[in-house]
Formats: sequence, C-alpha cells, structure tokens
Amino acid sequence: MATAADVNAMRRAVALAARGLGTTSPNPVVGCVVLDASGHEVGAGWHERAGGPHAEVHALRRAGVLARGGTAYVTLEPCNHTGRTGPCAQALVEAGVARVVYAVADPDPQATGGADTLRAAGVRVESGLLADEAEAGNAAWLTSVRHGRPYIRWKYAATLDGRIAAADGTSRWITSAESRADVHRLRAEADAVIVGSGTARTDDPHLAVRGVDGAVQPLRVVVDSEATAVRPGARVLDDAAPTLIAVAEDADAAHLAGADVVRLPRAASGRGLSVPALLAALHARDIRSALLEGGPTLAGAFAAEGAVDEVVGYLAPVLLGAGPAALADAGITTIADALRLHVTDTARFGPDLRITAVPADRGPGGRPPGPHSTAVPAPTAAKEH
Amino acid sequence: MATAADVNAMRRAVALAARGLGTTSPNPVVGCVVLDASGHEVGAGWHERAGGPHAEVHALRRAGVLARGGTAYVTLEPCNHTGRTGPCAQALVEAGVARVVYAVADPDPQATGGADTLRAAGVRVESGLLADEAEAGNAAWLTSVRHGRPYIRWKYAATLDGRIAAADGTSRWITSAESRADVHRLRAEADAVIVGSGTARTDDPHLAVRGVDGAVQPLRVVVDSEATAVRPGARVLDDAAPTLIAVAEDADAAHLAGADVVRLPRAASGRGLSVPALLAALHARDIRSALLEGGPTLAGAFAAEGAVDEVVGYLAPVLLGAGPAALADAGITTIADALRLHVTDTARFGPDLRITAVPADRGPGGRPPGPHSTAVPAPTAAKEH
Repeated sequence: MATAADVNAMRRAVALAARGLGTTSPNPVVGCVVLDASGHEVGAGWHERAGGPHAEVHALRRAGVLARGGTAYVTLEPCNHTGRTGPCAQALVEAGVARVVYAVADPDPQATGGADTLRAAGVRVESGLLADEAEAGNAAWLTSVRHGRPYIRWKYAATLDGRIAAADGTSRWITSAESRADVHRLRAEADAVIVGSGTARTDDPHLAVRGVDGAVQPLRVVVDSEATAVRPGARVLDDAAPTLIAVAEDADAAHLAGADVVRLPRAASGRGLSVPALLAALHARDIRSALLEGGPTLAGAFAAEGAVDEVVGYLAPVLLGAGPAALADAGITTIADALRLHVTDTARFGPDLRITAVPADRGPGGRPPGPHSTAVPAPTAAKEH
Repeated sequence: MATAADVNAMRRAVALAARGLGTTSPNPVVGCVVLDASGHEVGAGWHERAGGPHAEVHALRRAGVLARGGTAYVTLEPCNHTGRTGPCAQALVEAGVARVVYAVADPDPQATGGADTLRAAGVRVESGLLADEAEAGNAAWLTSVRHGRPYIRWKYAATLDGRIAAADGTSRWITSAESRADVHRLRAEADAVIVGSGTARTDDPHLAVRGVDGAVQPLRVVVDSEATAVRPGARVLDDAAPTLIAVAEDADAAHLAGADVVRLPRAASGRGLSVPALLAALHARDIRSALLEGGPTLAGAFAAEGAVDEVVGYLAPVLLGAGPAALADAGITTIADALRLHVTDTARFGPDLRITAVPADRGPGGRPPGPHSTAVPAPTAAKEH
C-alpha cells in the first residue's frame, strides 16, 4: 500500500519527467526522486536529452551517499541495458538504495529486466504507483515501443460550426494568436510535423517551431503523393529544420533533387499513400511522435487506419455556414461506426477553446483505459426530440 | 458610488429574477430586494408569472412597515403603468422607501417613467448598478422590446468535427443523455421551439418539454414552407403543447385543417420563408424568446438575417469525417464576413461540452457590448504556419 509520501514523491517524478518532452526522443521521458531512509528528498532529476544521463543518474548524483538505505521513485522501470549510458538498475544497486518504486514497466525488450536485477541484488521493488499519470506523460514513447509506429496527435483549428476555411478557401484568423502560439508548443514537443499536399499547395506552410525557448526543431513531413505540391522554393524546403517529402513510388520527383524524399506505396484503397507505410518509414527514422496538422483528407486517412492517438482541436467562436470540415473521408458512413473519444482537457486560448481528447477505447500510451479513465456511457434509451 | 451592500443586494435581486425564466413571458423577469434603513434585508421577491404580482409588490408585502425609510433594489426600472397589477413606482412611494436603485431602464414606452414618478415623490433614485448582469438575465424580453422580435437562441448538437449526422443520415446518440436533458431545460425557458421542414420530415420530433418541474410548454413551431413535412399524425400535432405550422402563402395546406397554420411570404432570395415575417408573426403572438433547434438550413437563414442572439452548442467527443454540418447557407462566402462571437460559458454535460456564445458585436439584450464584455482582439499580423 503506497503512503502519501510515496504518492507525493512519484507525482513530483512525473512532473519532472515532463520537462524532457521534445528533447529526449527517441528515448522516453523519465523522472526520478530519491528520498533518504527518513523520507527527506535528497535527489531528483529527469532525462533531459537523448544521449545524456538517465533520470536515475541525475538524481543519484545529487543524492550522493544520502541515497544509501533510501527509496528511489522512477516513472519508468529502471533500464537494464548498457546504451550510451550504463544500466540504471546497476547504478541504483551501487548507490545502496533499499527500495525502488516505479510507475510503468519498461516494454522495450532491449531494456527490460531492471526490476529483476534490482531484486536479485536485494532491493525491494514495487511497481504501478501513479501508472496512469506516468503512462500519459510517456504516451508517445510507449505507443512507439508497443505499436512500432509514432504517436499521432492530430491538431485542427475550426469554427464552432466545424469549418476550417470559408467557402472561397480563405482561412486567415479563424483562431487567435494565443492558439497559434500553443500550436508551436505542440510542434516543439513532437519529433515530426506532418501535412498533406492540399495544405502544402494552398498555404505554403513553414512548419518550423517559433517562439519556444530551447526547442528542438521537428522533422517537417509533407505527404505529397503525386509530387506536385512541394515546388522548389517552397518555405518548407528552407534550412530552419529538416524536411522529408513522402511521394508515391511511381511519382515523378525529379524537381525535388536535393530534398530528402521517401518513396512509399500507395494506399490499398482510396487516394494517397499507405498510412502504415508512412508510419513505418517515420518509425525507422526514430520518429516517436508526430503532430498531424492536416488537411482533412490526410487526417481522415489516419483516422481510418486507427492511427490517431490524440485529438487537439482549437475551436474559434466563429460561424461560417459553408466551407470544408476538419476531417474528411475517414471511412465512417453511419453513426454506429463513429470514432468515439473522451475529453481529457479543455482550456481557453484567447477567445478560443482548446479541446483535447483520446480514443475512448484506449488509455494513455495506447493501452485500454484503466479503472480511473473516463468511460463513455453506453446509450440506454431511444432517441428523443 | 455603490457600496458593497448595494452590490450584494442587487446581485441577489438578479438571482431572484432568474427564477422567473420561462413563466413570466410576455413580461420581463424582475427581482427585488428591500433593505431597511439600517441595511437589513426585510423583503425580497420576484415576478413569478405573467398576470401575477410584480417583484416589487412581493418584496414590499414581505417587508411591510419595515420598508419605510429603506432602499429597494430592482433589476428593472419600476413600472409606471397600470396593467393587470398597479404601477410599482406608486407602490414603492406608498411603502415609504427612501431610495430606489434599479439596474436597467425600462425600454417599454408603455411602462417607462417610473423613475420620474419616484423622483417627483421625493424618492432618491439611482440606476445602472450591475446593469450587464441584469441585461443578460432579461436578454429575451429586452430584445423583444428593443427590436420587436423574439430573442433567438440557436441550439445545435454536433461532433468534434462539426457533423450533426453521419453520411447516411443517422444521428442517434451523437450527444449524451445529460446534454439532451439540458435541452429540455432550454425549451422550458423559451416561449417557442422552432424547427425546419428537414428536421420535421427526418426526425418527426415531439418538441415538448419533458422532465422539467413546473415547466410551461413552449409553442412548437415548424417552418414547413411547402406544407409537405408535417403530415396528419405527426408527433408535433399531439396535445402536449400548442403548435404552429408556418407555410408559404401559396402552399397547399389542406391536410393541416384543424392545425394552427400561419401563412407567410417567401424569402426575398433563397429558399424558405421570410425570416423577418416569421419573427413578426411570433412577436404578434407574444413570443418573446425562441429556441431554434435547426436544421442547418433554417439556422443559416436566421444567421443570414442577423437573427441569432445566442448560440448554444453541444459538442460530443465523436468524429465522423462525413455528414452534414450544423449550419448551412448563412450567406457567408469569405472569412472576413464570418460571424464572430464571444464565448460566455462552457460546461460539461456527461462526456459532452456545452459552449454558449453571443455575437461579438452585441452585449446582453442586443445592445453593443459594455466595458465589461469580452472583446475579440482584432487580427494584428499575417497568417503564419
């Protein structure tokens, strides 16, 4: 049974872990807090960047000899393998901690086994404390390890009546400056930003992060199946961030010489490229999370493949009555097949609302929802008007 | 300068007034609080139903002789005319109150002049305290007096991607039981509920209020221009509530013999009936507020006429990717002409979100926004991606 002190220490570790979002990929974010034998915090740290020390190493360095006989709280099972840094399980044993509490087991077959190593050395090991919170914080990495593809956060910006542009295609200022600044924060947290050919052709987007201190620029990805949308001189081809153009295997991409182009099979049905093939190509490039910024057809293709892990919608208090919707062609024709979500957060950004939701059949990190998740009640009566 | 005691008393009067919503039409809602000369509350009341005593009369009865030398706080300027009850200004004079503070001036030419009557009798009169809150509480009645038409609250229920039904027309269970119960509360507050022919034909809606204690049933209005949607035996024709069918002047409505049918001119341009003519017909029937429940074409016609005073959207955490949007044909073709709102409230109903908004160019009650209203910031920079 976890004590209040245990919960407090783990909650702090989860919060510390989040400071690594955007800079640790392809590694997970991890936080660690060390209490001495009498329950005082003597060390804390988080995994700050890929290639840098793990969270446990930071925390143990700060604790020094005070870790001896104490407890280490870690958001992820301590690793057991020697990568660019040594195995953390061994470091915890050498520091003399008497007990290790971790939130989420390591699903990576290369790294797992840390708990066994600790137990074999006589350390008391407990797991599962604040697992839901820690899962949510590590959703991108856990999804990539479990499913072999990046975690996809789909972002859209629409009017209250669901339009992303007016009938004539104009869309300037649907959402506010505050909302647009928040999108840059989402980009900074992601390893990649993805748009389709329609968006590339219409908006000539830049897609780099601006206004976020210390941001690592994400890979800019344009899904340009026919290789007709990205032309030489496109803003996305500048040197502000790396860029990848995904085209069909049979497309003529001669004008993209010099750009990073990946050739992918076309979708088995419908238009565009195979979404699974695109996801596999990104995974192979160590992309663990991507911000899908549209347009509606590409978002629909991702939704149809079950490849939307999180939805972030910015809703502007505006009505248009005409114009394209945020999502199209998701393969859903009747209400019983609707993609049902549950709302995890709502917030105001200037005049706009931001709604965050995840598929109702999954919990954080792509697992089925745990006992603390918000379930969507099943319908129980006939439609009434 | 209003004291804290003044503000507290008026705030309570505003809250009391709201208890009359749905039962006072065609009268306004009004609340009244009476403090004695030493500042203790000695009476309070609200206008409970049309034909019943006004708020001031209720409050003065409770206060009795203790009102003498005290202050009366009223959300609306005390009336000066003798209708089904006597003039309240005279009642306040006779009760001996020394001071009257009211929030909003009475714009009704038949009733105004109460402040002058009070002053002539030597009562100190102040106005404007908590005017914005009192305006908002009386928005329906003030709109009807100022503009000669009902206050229109447009309600819709949609998915996160803005769909009100799936591609095949199915829409059952887009929103939750909690949201649907809240819609019955909105119906109970309104004098009328309006739907168009598409909704009547597709859903055969009942439109009466269920599950709201003490509700006065609103007038059910179907805009059935061609007189083809409401057939004998339609649920809306039962005796649960009165019903009005609005048809075009030249429509063949022989099958509606026995029903209350109003013939109206067609819209000058586009499909359907003239919205101003419909609003005038409702106003003539003492309808001060109406809940517009769709569908998208009718809502678009109201929006195009500037006849949407408030928007209440229930957003379900559901994605469809196809299907009709909540608003259509509002006459807006480019983003610069978008109807901009400001959000006045957000709330959760089960898994759904309810968003309430009013046109950004108006304050409560149809006036321009006051200094306390949330302004939508003007765009200040170029579109960035």
